[in-house]
Amino acid sequence: MAGNSRESGRTVTGRAFSVLGAFDAESPRLSLTEISQRADVPLATAHRLVGELENWGALRRENDGRYTIGLRLWELGLLAPVHTGLRNAAMPYMQQLHEQTGANVQLAVRDGPEAVYVEKLSGRRSIPILSRSGGRLPLHPTGVGKVLLAHAPREVVQDYCARGLVRYTPYTVAEPGRLVRELAGVRQRDFARTAEEMTFGSCSVAVPVREDGDVVASLGLVVQTAQAEVAKLVRALAPAAEAIGRQLDSSTAFRSEAD
Amino acid sequence: MAGNSRESGRTVTGRAFSVLGAFDAESPRLSLTEISQRADVPLATAHRLVGELENWGALRRENDGRYTIGLRLWELGLLAPVHTGLRNAAMPYMQQLHEQTGANVQLAVRDGPEAVYVEKLSGRRSIPILSRSGGRLPLHPTGVGKVLLAHAPREVVQDYCARGLVRYTPYTVAEPGRLVRELAGVRQRDFARTAEEMTFGSCSVAVPVREDGDVVASLGLVVQTAQAEVAKLVRALAPAAEAIGRQLDSSTAFRSEAD
Repeated sequence: MAGNSRESGRTVTGRAFSVLGAFDAESPRLSLTEISQRADVPLATAHRLVGELENWGALRRENDGRYTIGLRLWELGLLAPVHTGLRNAAMPYMQQLHEQTGANVQLAVRDGPEAVYVEKLSGRRSIPILSRSGGRLPLHPTGVGKVLLAHAPREVVQDYCARGLVRYTPYTVAEPGRLVRELAGVRQRDFARTAEEMTFGSCSVAVPVREDGDVVASLGLVVQTAQAEVAKLVRALAPAAEAIGRQLDSSTAFRSEAD
Repeated sequence: MAGNSRESGRTVTGRAFSVLGAFDAESPRLSLTEISQRADVPLATAHRLVGELENWGALRRENDGRYTIGLRLWELGLLAPVHTGLRNAAMPYMQQLHEQTGANVQLAVRDGPEAVYVEKLSGRRSIPILSRSGGRLPLHPTGVGKVLLAHAPREVVQDYCARGLVRYTPYTVAEPGRLVRELAGVRQRDFARTAEEMTFGSCSVAVPVREDGDVVASLGLVVQTAQAEVAKLVRALAPAAEAIGRQLDSSTAFRSEAD
C-alpha cells in the first residue's frame, strides 16, 4: 500500500476511517482543522479525504464550513442487523410497553465491556435519562447492563471487574464480589433491577431477550425511584421480551457482536 | 494515489466505499464474491478491503461467512443531524400521535427526487406500509412526498416531472399539470393527502415541519382508506409538526440536504 513516512502502517482506507472516527457523540460537528487533529492526519490529507467522503455522502459540509455525518452513511448504518433485525422486531413491543407504563423503554446489546443502546423510547411524561440510541453506558450500574453481564461468558465478567467498577452514586454496586453474587441472582430471577446506581432518582428493571435460547439483548424500563413497582414492571417486560425473541427467527438472525 | 490499471480513476478510499455501497436494503448480507461483483473490484482487492473494513467495525462477518454492516458504522451513522437533530426532536411527538390515532406515523426529508423516511412508527394495530427508516419512496404518490415536493424549488419540481411520473395505481396523480396544480393546493391548505396513489387500501395525510420558516421535513399519518377522517388527522398532525419545528433550534440546526 502507498503511504508516506508519517503515515506508515496506516492504509489509505485506514486514514479515511480515522477521519470518520474523529466524529463522536460529544463532537458530531467538526471543522477541517479539528478533523485533521483528531484523526492525526496532515491538513492537506484531511482536506483530500474529507472531499472524497463528502462526494460519497459519508460526510456533509454545513453552511458554516463544519462537517457532520452525511445522509448516505446514516442510511448505510441502518442496514446493520442490530437495526433491521433486533430494533425493528422490538419496536412495536417497545411502543406498547411505553403506552402501558409511561416509562422510558430501552433496548441494549453488549459490545465488549459496554451496553450499546439500540433504541430508547422516552415520552414527554418520562423522566430524563442518559441513554440514547447509538449511545453507550457501563454494564454494572444499569438494569440492561446487569442482564447483559449476567449472561456474558465468565472471562468477560472477570475482565470487567478487573478493570475496576466506577462508583457513580453511593448506591452503585462497585465491589466485584457483590456484583458477581448479584449477577447470579439476575440469572436466577431472570430480571435485573437498579435503584439510583447510575443517577439519583431513577431506577430500572430489565429482562433478557433470547434468540434460540441465547441472550442476545436486554429490554428495560427506567422510572422514577418513587414510582418503582418492580413486580408490575417485570410482568409488563417479560411477555414483550418473549415476543421479541420469537420475532428474531433464524432467517434474519441477529446475534450479539460481543464475543 | 496508488492504483493499478484496472482501477485507475478510483481512489483507494473510493474502492473501500464502493465495497460499502454494495450493501443495500434488498441485499444487506453479502458473500465476498457478491461484494467483489457488486463493487466491481477484483476478488483479492475485495478480500483485503473487507478485512480492513471488518477490523474497523464497518463490516461484520457472520457465522456463515457472509458480511453485514457492522455495529460501529451503525453507531457512526446515528451521529448524522437527521437523526440527532430531526429524529430525536420528533420522536416524542410521533409517539404521542401514534397513541392518539393508532395510525402509522412517518417523518421524511427530501433527498433529490426521493423521500427519505427518517422514522416511522407502526404499531401492531396499524396497517402494513412500505416505508422503513432509512428507506426511500417517490415523492408524487405519497403524502409526505407531496408536501416535500410542494416546498421544493421550482427547478426540482420541473426536473421531477420531466423524469416521468410512475403510475402505481389507477389513482396515482401521474400527469405533470395536475400534479403541479395539486402542489399549489398543498401549499395553500398546508397539508397534503393521498388516497390509494401508492398502495390500494391506504391513504395518507401529511403536513410540513418548519425550521425558522423553512420546510425541512414532513410529518404524515397513513391509515386505511375506509378510516380516513382527513380533517381530524390534520388537527392531530399540525400541532405536533409545530412543536417539532420549535425544538429544531438553530444551535443544533437540522437542514435538509436536498439542495
